[in-house]
Amino acid sequence: MSLPAPIQNLIEAFSRLPGIGPKTASRLTFYLLRAPENVALDLAQALDELKSGTAFCQTCYNITEAGRVECGICADDERDHGILCIVEEPLDVLAMERTGGYQGVFHVLHGALSPIEGIGPEDLKIRELIRRVQGGEVREVILATNPSMEGDATAMYLRGQLENFTVQITRLARGLPMGGDLEYADQNTLLRALAGRQAMD
Amino acid sequence: MSLPAPIQNLIEAFSRLPGIGPKTASRLTFYLLRAPENVALDLAQALDELKSGTAFCQTCYNITEAGRVECGICADDERDHGILCIVEEPLDVLAMERTGGYQGVFHVLHGALSPIEGIGPEDLKIRELIRRVQGGEVREVILATNPSMEGDATAMYLRGQLENFTVQITRLARGLPMGGDLEYADQNTLLRALAGRQAMD
Repeated sequence: MSLPAPIQNLIEAFSRLPGIGPKTASRLTFYLLRAPENVALDLAQALDELKSGTAFCQTCYNITEAGRVECGICADDERDHGILCIVEEPLDVLAMERTGGYQGVFHVLHGALSPIEGIGPEDLKIRELIRRVQGGEVREVILATNPSMEGDATAMYLRGQLENFTVQITRLARGLPMGGDLEYADQNTLLRALAGRQAMD
Repeated sequence: MSLPAPIQNLIEAFSRLPGIGPKTASRLTFYLLRAPENVALDLAQALDELKSGTAFCQTCYNITEAGRVECGICADDERDHGILCIVEEPLDVLAMERTGGYQGVFHVLHGALSPIEGIGPEDLKIRELIRRVQGGEVREVILATNPSMEGDATAMYLRGQLENFTVQITRLARGLPMGGDLEYADQNTLLRALAGRQAMD
């Protein structure tokens, strides 16, 4: 039996999302068929507006509302703009913010160096990071890339790029499990890693 | 830190789907932020077209393309229109079809009797079923409701409604685990249940 095209299309579109296999995709599709029409249409609208309604902060490259030049964190005068926490992804900013233990600002690289995937320094927001440090306001750079091969390589590379600046370079204390993903770390592990950060020399 | 509204909206829209919690919803959302724009837009379009592009078969109430009066199974002269398999949901039709062992046609009730949820006979496609059986072409009705409280209650109710017709009433052989859901049964279990169906007396 072949499914009607609109159902097949939706199952395929769901299947392209990470962690959603064909079985889950068909469950979701048939759920939406029975659910009130606005459940599917609200989701469709939210998807349509995802990219048109968001923009990158022109300072830290975190996600922010479209039309804003700076995100809420960069625009916040109460935060310490002398401390810069370097993360790979916007979700990592969320994870750091959830700890409630960080008062500095961020810089989002949008990835990590990965020769295998062909991701080099020019693919990340590294030039923009150097420019921020050149500005002179930054006293400390906390390297908070993921505790993985790529994250470590990125941290090493950044240390090299930043060593000629009069800025302290630290990294999150180990305690994060190797091969893990920063956004999955629980708050206490992250808090301890933040408190125990060590000079990178 | 508060997330930009378009991101918050999409996380909430995903969270309303069954089996998707806030953590998975935010993973999917941030994945879509990075993915090529067409991944999100294709999904949005498929969602928009889900209800407008589908209709119910006016014979068996399975899902079919909009504009069609009958589904592919009902329109197929090679199937045995004298055998009617009664299921709760369109996904159950799929599960039966996957076995490759059924040559009759279907009738989709769109639910099961449930006094607790306030679902009575008039909420299901039962009147339409009686009308089909009255037509005289049907020799056998296979009750293939889920092996649950509601599914069993529905089967008992249907047996009562159909007993005055000269039609054999059978049900899928037990072997299906109680409290389970028909669409999750593996093909062999379903095949055996189909082959071992017993007269309901």
